[in-house]
Amino acid sequence: MNFERVKLKTLHDKITDPESALQHFYDGAVVGSSGFTKAGDSKVILKALAKDAPRRPIGITLITGASLGHNTDGALAEAGVLKRRMPFQVDTVLRKKINAGEILFIDQNLGETSEMLTDGDIPDIDIAVIEAAFIAEDGGIVPTTSVGNSPIFAKHAKKIIIEINTAVHENVYGIHDIYQLEAYPDRKPIEILKPDDRIGDKAIYVDTSKIVAIVFSDIQDSPADIAEPDEKTTAIADHLIEFLSKEVKEGRLTKSLRPLQAGIGKVANAVMQGLGRGDFEHLTMYSEVLQDSAFDLIDLGKLDFASAASITVSEKCYERVFNNLDQYRDKIVLRPQSISNSPEVIRRLGIIGINTAIEFDIYGNVNSTHISGSQMMNGIGGSGDFARNTHLSIFVTQAASKGDTISHVLPMVSHVDHNEHNVDVVVTDQGYADLRGLAPRERAKLIIEHCAHPDYKADLLDYFNRACEKVGGQTPHLLEEAFAFHARLMKTKTMKKEGEEVLRDVH
Amino acid sequence: MNFERVKLKTLHDKITDPESALQHFYDGAVVGSSGFTKAGDSKVILKALAKDAPRRPIGITLITGASLGHNTDGALAEAGVLKRRMPFQVDTVLRKKINAGEILFIDQNLGETSEMLTDGDIPDIDIAVIEAAFIAEDGGIVPTTSVGNSPIFAKHAKKIIIEINTAVHENVYGIHDIYQLEAYPDRKPIEILKPDDRIGDKAIYVDTSKIVAIVFSDIQDSPADIAEPDEKTTAIADHLIEFLSKEVKEGRLTKSLRPLQAGIGKVANAVMQGLGRGDFEHLTMYSEVLQDSAFDLIDLGKLDFASAASITVSEKCYERVFNNLDQYRDKIVLRPQSISNSPEVIRRLGIIGINTAIEFDIYGNVNSTHISGSQMMNGIGGSGDFARNTHLSIFVTQAASKGDTISHVLPMVSHVDHNEHNVDVVVTDQGYADLRGLAPRERAKLIIEHCAHPDYKADLLDYFNRACEKVGGQTPHLLEEAFAFHARLMKTKTMKKEGEEVLRDVH
Repeated sequence: MNFERVKLKTLHDKITDPESALQHFYDGAVVGSSGFTKAGDSKVILKALAKDAPRRPIGITLITGASLGHNTDGALAEAGVLKRRMPFQVDTVLRKKINAGEILFIDQNLGETSEMLTDGDIPDIDIAVIEAAFIAEDGGIVPTTSVGNSPIFAKHAKKIIIEINTAVHENVYGIHDIYQLEAYPDRKPIEILKPDDRIGDKAIYVDTSKIVAIVFSDIQDSPADIAEPDEKTTAIADHLIEFLSKEVKEGRLTKSLRPLQAGIGKVANAVMQGLGRGDFEHLTMYSEVLQDSAFDLIDLGKLDFASAASITVSEKCYERVFNNLDQYRDKIVLRPQSISNSPEVIRRLGIIGINTAIEFDIYGNVNSTHISGSQMMNGIGGSGDFARNTHLSIFVTQAASKGDTISHVLPMVSHVDHNEHNVDVVVTDQGYADLRGLAPRERAKLIIEHCAHPDYKADLLDYFNRACEKVGGQTPHLLEEAFAFHARLMKTKTMKKEGEEVLRDVH
Repeated sequence: MNFERVKLKTLHDKITDPESALQHFYDGAVVGSSGFTKAGDSKVILKALAKDAPRRPIGITLITGASLGHNTDGALAEAGVLKRRMPFQVDTVLRKKINAGEILFIDQNLGETSEMLTDGDIPDIDIAVIEAAFIAEDGGIVPTTSVGNSPIFAKHAKKIIIEINTAVHENVYGIHDIYQLEAYPDRKPIEILKPDDRIGDKAIYVDTSKIVAIVFSDIQDSPADIAEPDEKTTAIADHLIEFLSKEVKEGRLTKSLRPLQAGIGKVANAVMQGLGRGDFEHLTMYSEVLQDSAFDLIDLGKLDFASAASITVSEKCYERVFNNLDQYRDKIVLRPQSISNSPEVIRRLGIIGINTAIEFDIYGNVNSTHISGSQMMNGIGGSGDFARNTHLSIFVTQAASKGDTISHVLPMVSHVDHNEHNVDVVVTDQGYADLRGLAPRERAKLIIEHCAHPDYKADLLDYFNRACEKVGGQTPHLLEEAFAFHARLMKTKTMKKEGEEVLRDVH
């Protein structure tokens, strides 16, 4: 144990081992844990809780910033400890239990969880588990690789457990900007006018008497799985660059664009990397996660500044960033997710948001969360916080997948996370459709022509034409056929009509 | 003609008749006209344009604040002058042509039209038509009963035509607060911390050399059709008051609640009137329209202050307000809709938004715009601006209508304007469901139990149970049956299963 990391000496008697800290947990407890897209999550306490379950079975509500690493969610789910989970997850085991109805998942806009806590809309935090690099002499809790919801959890919790992670160097001090929103009706404007504006503290300040245990870990964050760009993600990136370059050429944007937000994952990462190839300069980010691509762009001299709620990078990138933090220190800031995802700041800065869709429809509605309308994938994450308030809301996906048996452009999405009003541009590997200022019937033609996979264009156009003819309306739909593509996939393993014909021939 | 209403004398030579002002219009022109929910709209120029069409057929894009009165939209549609229309409408004739695909309608969040103009996302304004009470000596254009998008139209237009409406008394001067958002990247915080904060000018200031014509009218706004509360709307109001009273009792709200927003129409008006019966005091509104109910609440001493973009009231209420404006002057303010519907201010003030749904589904998704998924009713209006950023987003509708042949609670909505993430509470005449912090499966049970009409409860529950069993998932749906209620209505004129049975017996 590294007593030096607890600089407020009056807290030394709280230092203990994870197993002893478990005494603070009980059946029905609401636990708020640090962790945002696998960064800065609890490494030992939550795992210990799962391990302890056979001996002492309890059920908890777990609220985090976003996803956890190290299969912690899976371990908790498997052990039966998780009863309710919010606001986001990416774990295979947990996902299965959510979809089986065994664990209740409350899929939330990541910027809103703290609002709900402030307003008492969700149960208040009993125990907060916060990963920290160290506790300062003045009691300030210095976060590690994410801020997420840690400040609001610490503020609301009856008891706080700190996990000091010695794998994170103390020099992270200063990369965080901790600002907490006032409760109603005393809210003030959030004085962020540029991505690099700092408005808060460098640590989380709470009543330190609430700290009931301090444990140690020496475990690095789970690395991000960063797939190399492939043909499709490169094509998507190229189409997006084509669109942004046109905006610059036509004078609606400058070469430094506007502050960028990019969702997490392979496609978004490839798109951001792709920006390095475009004729852009002095870019900035106001996003929720910094992936490898952000640091690549900084190294290329293309990205001046990046604001987010977490750093989630590959192992290689992690070493590069955290072994050379002084090179990046003045180019990044980590904020609470209530600030990184704040509607006020997003609208004021005129953000360009780039998020991934599971599917979108011919009228521009986007599904980011559900497979075939019912099965949860990960959750809406921050995509809603951004899409609803950005200057430009862009959604990207592949036109077709799984040997082109699945079209990601559909007559009607099976679940709506972002509706036509919050979607400006859709991009696939086939091309992009700029939907701004267009009526639904105009959008349909453009999306089918530019974004759909060639194998599905005729079917989509046929649906649209028949809907116009038979039903008409602002947004022509044949309700009885709206999900025919999804139904075909379930029945014949492909959305292509030939599947049905093949099946007919077989029988 | 009343020269006194044009106090800037250099503009006197612009005074003309509507027919002469028509010379400024041409085929393909983009016209931005004042008018928000029938208040402060163009009374003569647009009508003259429709009348002139047989002689000189032209097609225009018409952008307004929101809906127009005096059947102006219908006259323009009928005359073939309207090619594209945004962001909102309520006209029967226009609606028919939109749904026939003859006029392109771009249904927009009312707070975003000005953003799109600023960003060049939609074609820029060629001609602005602005109703004014008078033009001040310093050139300030003083609006009448709405502000809406007039400031941004005047700012962007190449030419401005002013309609001085002498039916509106000059003493409206002072009830407006005109503030324009800076273009990116120079946006500042909007310094509204309370509904009654004033941050702008009392008139619209533009380069007066752009004013090419000033015409006169003496025509009052089309009155709002305010239906008296009936059994159902009263029941809805009562359930909503029950919910709000519970929130007060449990300490999440005080008796003055939070600033209220209410959508337009019979149900919202009845609900607001209903607040007068509750044990509330010192209420405030930060809304987009002030209806009769707002002034009733002011007269009752229940409502301290009301901010909006327009005043749309019945004839009787109009007289009461505008013949006694000094009584109301310090209790109301009219703002541009970019400010009344600003995400920043809505979130900061912690607004309680009450909007009307056409239908909602068992998981809490709301359709505000489309009949059976295809046919446009009016448009999303400001409901999205508010629902996405309010503290509490409440949607109200009747459980069933048309002799209970239509259920407004459905397995899946046929169009999504507000998804599960932006809907906190749903209310019908049957009861309310508080969806905060609940997983979709929990919401379904609550909504069916508390909000559905008794005639449809069994069918809805049967759908939900079978979806859980056969498909499962986070949001269990049977895609092939999701729109069965809608299909049944089209086929048998009722959503009830008996309809099918009756039809079967007949054949």
